[in-house]
Amino acid sequence: LSEYRLRCISCGKEFSKEEVEYTCPVCGDRKGTLEVIYDYEFLSKRIDRNLFRKYSSKGIWQFKDILPVRKDMVFPALEVGSTPVYFHKDIAKQFNLSGFSIKDDGRNPSASYKDRASAVAVVKAKEKNYDTIFCASTGNAASSLACFSAVSNLNCVIFVPATSPEAKLAQMQVYGANVIAIDGSYDMAFDISMKVGLTKGWYCRNSAINPYLLEGKKTGALELAVQYDWKPPDYVFVSVGDGTVYSSFCKGFYDLKQLGLIDKLPIVIGVQSEKISPIADAFEKGKPFEPIDVEGNSVADSIAVGKPRDVIKAVTYAKRFNGNFVKVTDEEILDAIAQLARTTGVFAEPAGAASFAGFKKYARLNSLEGKNVSIIVTGNGLKDLKSAMKKVGSVKIYPADEEVIREAFQ
Amino acid sequence: LSEYRLRCISCGKEFSKEEVEYTCPVCGDRKGTLEVIYDYEFLSKRIDRNLFRKYSSKGIWQFKDILPVRKDMVFPALEVGSTPVYFHKDIAKQFNLSGFSIKDDGRNPSASYKDRASAVAVVKAKEKNYDTIFCASTGNAASSLACFSAVSNLNCVIFVPATSPEAKLAQMQVYGANVIAIDGSYDMAFDISMKVGLTKGWYCRNSAINPYLLEGKKTGALELAVQYDWKPPDYVFVSVGDGTVYSSFCKGFYDLKQLGLIDKLPIVIGVQSEKISPIADAFEKGKPFEPIDVEGNSVADSIAVGKPRDVIKAVTYAKRFNGNFVKVTDEEILDAIAQLARTTGVFAEPAGAASFAGFKKYARLNSLEGKNVSIIVTGNGLKDLKSAMKKVGSVKIYPADEEVIREAFQ
Repeated sequence: LSEYRLRCISCGKEFSKEEVEYTCPVCGDRKGTLEVIYDYEFLSKRIDRNLFRKYSSKGIWQFKDILPVRKDMVFPALEVGSTPVYFHKDIAKQFNLSGFSIKDDGRNPSASYKDRASAVAVVKAKEKNYDTIFCASTGNAASSLACFSAVSNLNCVIFVPATSPEAKLAQMQVYGANVIAIDGSYDMAFDISMKVGLTKGWYCRNSAINPYLLEGKKTGALELAVQYDWKPPDYVFVSVGDGTVYSSFCKGFYDLKQLGLIDKLPIVIGVQSEKISPIADAFEKGKPFEPIDVEGNSVADSIAVGKPRDVIKAVTYAKRFNGNFVKVTDEEILDAIAQLARTTGVFAEPAGAASFAGFKKYARLNSLEGKNVSIIVTGNGLKDLKSAMKKVGSVKIYPADEEVIREAFQ
Repeated sequence: LSEYRLRCISCGKEFSKEEVEYTCPVCGDRKGTLEVIYDYEFLSKRIDRNLFRKYSSKGIWQFKDILPVRKDMVFPALEVGSTPVYFHKDIAKQFNLSGFSIKDDGRNPSASYKDRASAVAVVKAKEKNYDTIFCASTGNAASSLACFSAVSNLNCVIFVPATSPEAKLAQMQVYGANVIAIDGSYDMAFDISMKVGLTKGWYCRNSAINPYLLEGKKTGALELAVQYDWKPPDYVFVSVGDGTVYSSFCKGFYDLKQLGLIDKLPIVIGVQSEKISPIADAFEKGKPFEPIDVEGNSVADSIAVGKPRDVIKAVTYAKRFNGNFVKVTDEEILDAIAQLARTTGVFAEPAGAASFAGFKKYARLNSLEGKNVSIIVTGNGLKDLKSAMKKVGSVKIYPADEEVIREAFQ
């Protein structure tokens, strides 16, 4: 079904999918990221709500008619997407909302949101007859790509900062990727990945460069709409690093609206760390949008991105669709981990809990009264134990002595 | 629907659910674990295959008519069960099987099979008006109970060996449980938990003691039958610690056969570590079955149980239903982790990968030609990184220098 064209986010020039592989040749990698544009009029006659199911056996592939993949491809044998949405009346009441939910994307195969993009990436690599795929990553995109490459029989080369959490590095190794752990930042790893990967002729899974990855990520929005019975929440909170996940929510809802499947676009609020917030800063500065690169770091490694590669699209979408950004402190992120786990049973990594911290801050600064809110948990807490332990402390060790232990409960 | 009685696995005496809380008063905790017995004739007239769905929105609760819970209870707001089954033709071909699948229970809320039991445990605790629940655990049952207690507003006390993997201890802390980490083995933690927990009047979630927990665990078998369209595999491989998970597969398939929903009982093969295999040993020794306690340890912490509490039921079921046991080395378990991850994209903790190691060994020692086989991955690899890393090694760190990295690919 889904014939599509590519359009530059900056200059608006359109390309056929055969003309361009990654970014706009005029505007370049940084400003010329491409949007995937469907023939909505054609599609809307062929797609209706009944095509999609709340609990689909196919995960993200139930949306294949609005994904840029060949329909005859074999999809990887891993269940990606169909992650749970939990509704919490108590939290809704506490913040005077009409509804509150958590979408737990830590339940994906490699335990992060990035699996939605990696699944599409390996299908595209196969479609284009590549045998090797590469990416730069703070950790999650890499462990995800390692996982999907393994099950798809693709060689996988990863460029990652050596400071990436232990669990993410372990995943890459276990899945058998070729890991280049760089003594430097994600931003450095990214630049090196592009220079080495492209000259080697490998397929690029950097989601700001490869226009198809945002399309995989947008399935989070599509699922949310289905799980909300086509009346999606008023607000969606999600953490922001490079910017692609933010844009993917905007794009997913936009696609559904163009197809007549939802009536109203949710407002997407991006959450950044106060210590490293180049996308929020660029949005605040306003038009004409320019990348503002910064130095910095955050306990939320997944969004510790000083030179965001997909900033122009993120701020353009935020402007176009009435979105916004909010900044939180590392302290607030760490508090949110335990709070979320203890009230909802969802253990999130720092960037995953940042959406909850961002929601709470936004609710304090702006009125959300009567609104329906959903937060996205983009990664499982098991992926970064060190950060989680900063707040809750280690376990206390007792001798194997009944009396001593009994006393502890007096 | 599900009225039920309790029956001692050793003496066969039956009890009403009001008469006994945990184990047979005559045979005691160790030998007198109870079976939950339904009125199959009554139920089989009211239950048919159409009641159950391959992809249910309700996870394990779609089976509530054959679970020992009050139907008016509020179930915890976490999606438990409905874990994926992946079919792998290449592995089937390699071992001359008619089919091979992996059921990945690492995709549960706290990332292990134990969530199936904890979900039932917190519902029973609420039903019985307890405000505190306790368990002893090698790690997974505890992190799982901590998770489900958090979302159910129950106090949770955990008795766990202090050597439990870091990730499992972290989960318990983050979920806000009261963790008693004991300088000793799981077996010591168990004994202390019973002495302290019962005198304190807390609800006991030790799955060998509490007859309802096996019923929660049996949903793994029920799901597998549904996912196999009611023609379950010939063989199911699952790792064995205390023995309850092994028995839960036997019992789940037995229930379905009694209800006329499946025609044939799969053969369940329990996998133990060669270094600590008291259940396999007791089965080998034969009738009359007696516990054989051993000292030992294994890289697979979840099944490093020297004094298994549910051994009598496990070996009785193995005998009754033509099951068997197989022992694997720690080396084989560690090899299985990387092999499974690199061929299927499923990253398992050691005890989870043990099922794969056990399958491979069993296939070498016995003929499985033409058989349909499923292995159960009972825990996510993110729960024990140290063990996984033993085989694959750490990442190599490179300077942030394009030329140096380019050379690495010459």
